[in-house]
This record gives sequence, C-alpha cells and structure tokens, in this order.
Amino acid sequence: MERVVVIGGDAAGMSAAAQISRGAEAREVVVFERGEYTSFAACGLPYFVGGLVGSADRLVARSPEQHRANGIDVRTRHEVVAIDTGRRSVTVRDLDAGTETDERYDHVLIAVGATPIRPPFPHLDAPGVFGIQTIPDALAIDEVLRTRSPRRAVVVGGGYIGLEMVEALVLRGLEVTMVEKLPQPMATLDPDMGERVAEALRAMGVTTRLGVGVAGFGVGADGWVDSVGTDDGDLPADLVVMGLGVRPSTRLAVDAGIPVGSSGGIVTDARMATPVDGVWAAGDCVESFHRVSRRAVSIALGTHANKQGRVAGLNLSGTPARFPGVIGTAITKIGTTEIARTGLNEREAAQAGFDAVAGVIEGTSRAHYYPDGAELAVKVVAERGSGRILGAQIVGGPESAKRIDALAVAVWDEMTVDEFSQLDLAYAPPFSPVWDPTMIATRTTASRVR
Amino acid sequence: MERVVVIGGDAAGMSAAAQISRGAEAREVVVFERGEYTSFAACGLPYFVGGLVGSADRLVARSPEQHRANGIDVRTRHEVVAIDTGRRSVTVRDLDAGTETDERYDHVLIAVGATPIRPPFPHLDAPGVFGIQTIPDALAIDEVLRTRSPRRAVVVGGGYIGLEMVEALVLRGLEVTMVEKLPQPMATLDPDMGERVAEALRAMGVTTRLGVGVAGFGVGADGWVDSVGTDDGDLPADLVVMGLGVRPSTRLAVDAGIPVGSSGGIVTDARMATPVDGVWAAGDCVESFHRVSRRAVSIALGTHANKQGRVAGLNLSGTPARFPGVIGTAITKIGTTEIARTGLNEREAAQAGFDAVAGVIEGTSRAHYYPDGAELAVKVVAERGSGRILGAQIVGGPESAKRIDALAVAVWDEMTVDEFSQLDLAYAPPFSPVWDPTMIATRTTASRVR
Repeated sequence: MERVVVIGGDAAGMSAAAQISRGAEAREVVVFERGEYTSFAACGLPYFVGGLVGSADRLVARSPEQHRANGIDVRTRHEVVAIDTGRRSVTVRDLDAGTETDERYDHVLIAVGATPIRPPFPHLDAPGVFGIQTIPDALAIDEVLRTRSPRRAVVVGGGYIGLEMVEALVLRGLEVTMVEKLPQPMATLDPDMGERVAEALRAMGVTTRLGVGVAGFGVGADGWVDSVGTDDGDLPADLVVMGLGVRPSTRLAVDAGIPVGSSGGIVTDARMATPVDGVWAAGDCVESFHRVSRRAVSIALGTHANKQGRVAGLNLSGTPARFPGVIGTAITKIGTTEIARTGLNEREAAQAGFDAVAGVIEGTSRAHYYPDGAELAVKVVAERGSGRILGAQIVGGPESAKRIDALAVAVWDEMTVDEFSQLDLAYAPPFSPVWDPTMIATRTTASRVR
Repeated sequence: MERVVVIGGDAAGMSAAAQISRGAEAREVVVFERGEYTSFAACGLPYFVGGLVGSADRLVARSPEQHRANGIDVRTRHEVVAIDTGRRSVTVRDLDAGTETDERYDHVLIAVGATPIRPPFPHLDAPGVFGIQTIPDALAIDEVLRTRSPRRAVVVGGGYIGLEMVEALVLRGLEVTMVEKLPQPMATLDPDMGERVAEALRAMGVTTRLGVGVAGFGVGADGWVDSVGTDDGDLPADLVVMGLGVRPSTRLAVDAGIPVGSSGGIVTDARMATPVDGVWAAGDCVESFHRVSRRAVSIALGTHANKQGRVAGLNLSGTPARFPGVIGTAITKIGTTEIARTGLNEREAAQAGFDAVAGVIEGTSRAHYYPDGAELAVKVVAERGSGRILGAQIVGGPESAKRIDALAVAVWDEMTVDEFSQLDLAYAPPFSPVWDPTMIATRTTASRVR
C-alpha cells in the first residue's frame, strides 16, 4: 500500500488527509504536526481575543482525536525537519521525546503554512509583544488582557490581521493605536477606498499613524514592553501586537531543493504537485496562479488552503482534480464597517499590464425608504476598450461587503461592466435598492471604458 | 422634433422618459399617467403597511413635479384609453375634466404595468377586502388598521406579495391566516424549500392553510367583510388582503392589435420594440426572454421594469441598447427568514426539457464559532451530465438570501457546479464558513450530475 506523508495538520494538510482517507484507493496516510492542535481556524484568533468566541477550543474544527477516529494517523508535537526527496523519506523530530526518526513516503505533501513577518526590531521578543498566528498566541494575549489589564495597545500593521486585532482590542476596552508604514490601511485597496477604512478606524476612536515606520520597541524596568519606537516619535504601549502579515514557510522545501517561485511560495502545478517527483504542496506555503494578472501570487487564506488540500488529496487518492487559481477575493470588517475586494485594484491592474479605468459610486444596502439601510461605496476596475471587469472593492456598513461575491464570479468569468450592469440580481426593498450598488458601479465604469 | 408618448408614469415609463430627456437626440416626451403618483415603489407598499416606512410619500422616488423640473412633461390623472397605430395617435382621457383628446406620436411606449389577479369571488368588492398594488391601496389598509383595529386578517395567496403582507400584518399586531391553493407557500420554490417557508410562517404564529381554495367572502350586517369562505370551511376575518399576484396589463395593446405572447405579456424584441411600427413596451406589461428556459416569461418586478425602461429610452434617444433577458431571480423575507431563488427550480427545469438533478445542503452564514450565525439551506439544480447550474434556492436566517446573487451570475454565465465550487468567494469568519454554503451546495450537486 502506498504511503502518503502529510507535513502540517492544519487546513490544507488535514483536508488532504481526510480526502485521501475517504478516497477510492487504499493509501496509508500519516500526518506530522509540530503543534498540539489540528485543523484550527487561524482566521478566528482575533475574534477569540475580542471575546466573541468563548473558548479557544471552539476554533478547532477537528481535534487530533477526532481525526484519528476517522482513521487518520495524526502525530502532534512531531516536527518534520528535513525531506530527502531522493530516498523518499522525511526526518521527524518527536518534540516531547527529543528523538528523531526517518519515515519513508511514496508521496509527501508539504502543508506547513506561513510564517509571520518579523522585522529585526530591537526588543521584538520582549514580553508584551505578541504575534497572532496560533492558539497559544491568542491564549497568551487573552491572559495578559485578563491579568495585567493593559490600557494602551499598539498594533503594528494595517492589513487584514492588523485591522482584526485593532477591532479585538477595541472590543476589550483598550485605547488602540494602529501604526502602518504605508500612507493607508488595507494596502490591497486603492488609496481612495483605503481612506474610507481609515475614516472608519478614526470614527471608532482608534488612533491611526499612517506612513509611519516602526523602528523597535522600548521596555520598562520590569522588561515588559512600554513603547513602540517609530520614525515619528515613541508611542506608549502596554501591549503590542504584530500584524504585519505572513510569508510562505519554505525553509523545509528550499533545503530539500524544491523550487520556490517569484512570489515566495512553493511552486506547484494545478494538481498541487511540485516539480519534484512524489512531492506535493498545498496551503499558505505555496504560490497560486492569479487568474486575472496571470502571475503567481502568495495569498495566505484558509479558503484557498482548504481547496488546495482537497485537490491534492483527490489527486493522491486517484481522482484527478485541479486547483483553478485565485482572484484575490478577501473580506473583513472593523466595527460596523465592512471591507471587501476581488480581482485587481488600479495599481495591480497597471502592474499586470492592463490599461484600466475605474468607477466609484456611493449607494445604499437597502431601498432608500426601508429602515436601517447602510451606506456603501463600490469601486470597479475595468479594462479600457473591452470593458472586462478586472476587480472591485467595497467599503460600507452592514450587509455591504458580501456583495463582492457577485463581482468575484464576474471577474472569474471575465464578464464585462456592460454585462454585469444588466444582470438579474436579487431585488427587494430589505435587501437592495432597485439597482444594486454593484450594478450602478459597473454602469458608471462602463461609461468610462469607451 | 420627434414626439415620444409614454403611457404609464412608473418604473419603466419614467426610466425611459428620463433616459430620453437626457439623450443625445432632441425628442419631445410626454408621459400620461392615470394615477396621481409617478415613480413610486410598489415593492415598498407592504413595508409601509407594516409600519416600517413612516410616510407613503417616501415610496415616491420622484414626484410629477420633480420630473417636470427635469424637463419631462408628465400629465397625471390622464388615462390613455386607445392607441391608433395606423394614425400614430393615442386617445387620452383627462380623468378630472372628463374630456378626451387625441395626441399624435412618432413613437409610443406602453408601460402600463400589471393588473392584480382577482378571481370573481362573491363579495370581492366588500369593504374590508383590499388589494395592495397602489399607494391608495396601502393608505386604505393603513387607515383601517388605525381606525377599525381589526384583530384577524386573512391573506389570500402565498407568493411574494402574500408573504410580505403577512409579515406586515403580523408587525401590526394582527392574528394572520394565510390561505394558499397550492400545497406550499412560494410556488416559485421547490416543495422541499417551500416547506421551510411554511415552517417559518408557523414559527411566527401565522396560521397557514395550504392546499385550500378560496370560494368567496362573507359580509356582516354592516356590509364589512367578516369571513373568507374556502373549500375547507370559513375563516373569520376582520380584514382580507388579496395577494394573488399580477398579470401583465394588455387590454390597451390587444385593442390596438399589438401582439401578446404565450406568457400573457406584450411581445417585444430585445430593444423593447413591439412588432408594430413605432410601438414600444417595457415593464410589467411585457414578456421577457428567460435565458435558461429560452422561453418567454412574465415576471413583474421593479428591477426588470427599470432596466427595460432604460433600454427603451436609450433606443428611443438614438443609443442602441438591448435587454438581455431575465433568469427569474427573486428575494424576499418573512420575519427573520430570508428567501431567494434564481434560474429554474426542479419543476421548471423539467418543463424546459432539462434532465436535471438537485442537491440541498444545510449550512451556516458565518464560521461556526462566530456569534449570531444563522442556519440556511441552499438548493442547487443542475443539468445532468454537463453540470451546468440551472437554478438555485436559499431559505435561511439573516444574511442568507443575498448569497443568491453569486449563483445568479453563475446561472447567467452558464457556469457548472464544479466551476462554482472552486470559485474564490469572500471568506472571513463574520461573513462565511471557510466553504461558503453556496459552494458546498454546488459541490454536493456536482457529485450527482455524473
């Protein structure tokens, strides 16, 4: 019986393992996970810190015991430290016993995820400076919030994870400052839409320090962080959260001679096979094909990891499957402000060689006379001439941002702004104005593509 | 200067008139509207009755005065009673003066909307029996609710308007019974999904009488309605609302020899031109091309009326435009239960000659650990073999139903269930599980199409 070794017991690895164990062909599967948890929702960590989730256990979709009950051999606290692609074996360290063994494989799936970005700031390791990538990270922040009652928090980074941690800490009653090197939060949005996010942050009472670089951290007499040093002065801080995002974890792959691409992730084909025989990869550690820019991108997101893991698992169990790529759809919220994007923004479109135009409109989430409608802004980026929708962005109140999905389907299928503005989308007063804002935005953009 | 006569001053007619008045070519436009209002939101009437809108004036998007200020000659209380397509003139009755005049046209646009379905029930005209199609209808119901304090209401019909009136009357504190001849409410859904709507109605305390036909109305000594007679006994009623839906208003067209199609609406091409020279039609009075069944359908909906009016207006002002058809997308809610559909249901798919399969899943609107997520059921209908998505239905809690839009784009573009289940839709814990329920539903259906 062929043996599949899966390295990493989170979204991609466990999706693959589950698929293989359910597959048509009999395979032995063993999963090595260096942590104590499997299948935990990294995306849920800020909401646990924010007090919305109750117990961190709720973030675990399936525990190692549950996976084992499903017939998957999961070994936690076992770290794969090397892959020998010639001998088809991995070296596994039992972190508790301190021993190392070699395990043979017919196929190995690298699903080791991503590594948080940590510039070499002075005092980066000081107590009070936290990352937010694992359940232990979240438990540690929660404990500090409960036991030390910090008053002032600084979140370093204004992307998704930064914003979500800002919200979490506001919910926990802290005075929060967000520091972002770029002149806007949410750099995946165009500046005009990013400015709307900055306004929402300020309206929540968050201090935003945009265009400000962090230089390091200061510590007090007890060694605990007490300030964030920036190129625009010191910010007092009782707690610091690093939210600079992640990059693909590729050390294991690089050491084994498995190619890493221009975007920083492990290279795979659409089956999730690397160029090296018997070696597969999936999840945050790989790079994906962006269907609009036609370039490789590294986007760490649970939804891609799940899909890629499933595709790898299908292929490894005898059912051909392909991962068709990504279009950069993403969504988040900060307080009552929702934020979403898909495809390419104006800058990305230009970088990808498109001659692009954009239209922005302000609309409402419901018929103007129906109560509690929210305002939202929709921006659409389209190719001049053809009118093909290249991307879209939404910033608005409740029930705004999930509208991006209709635009995501349109971007995926290379629909034009004219086509979109004639679609039969769902209309009733509690759900939409008679022209959905997404359709008004495409119509406005249509007038500019010609 | 060419003269365009528009018959009907609501969504389709005024969209066209506005488009023509803004158009590149100079045209004289005159709109005849038999009522007192223009551009009012018929879809908003139940919400006004439900007490959610405040003043009925808020339902008027643009008053006759506002249209006139924009340079559109609107004549309210003027009813067109005949069209002479040979002489290119219409006969207009001034309802206040009681006079009739002939008005010449170069082009005429018929945008007279739809007529509520009114079976010849005994005592249909009794006081206390109401329709809900116009602002005067809604004002009349509101006045009865305020002045007569009725306790028991019967709503006849379990479609969109029936459901919305049930909700409105529950909001106003009445005991509501819904009578529907078919064995399910919302006949545009398949029975399994309709049953979920019936459950939601019962959970709200609404009495549902399904599979029960109405025979007529009983009246008390004062002549006011006091019961609804059915083939399963009498239902006491202090107030009755007729919610049997509408059919295209075609008398004027038929009398003028303008063709009416198999679905009951006026026949037009994609430009909204009828087969008769100089005669155009748009809105609830026309039939539309259904892009999935490839058949003509009559669907009264403000969103189509607006689009068709705009297309007619563009063509009438020198800019070629086409209405690409509909796919039967619709959405509504009853209490906290949201309901949506697009494309064809199982019955419609069979009628259209498709060999169809369906998959239904239950999921949640948010990540399982994120607070206040709602349950929702998603049904997908697909063509056996090809896997093409023919339609979808959603019934669920808050933030469920607008997800239909992504499926509507997919149905529009003839995407397959396999393609949809690999899409890059927006994921974050407050908005969706890592696999959006729509993707799980298409994946489940994909396993059945082969």
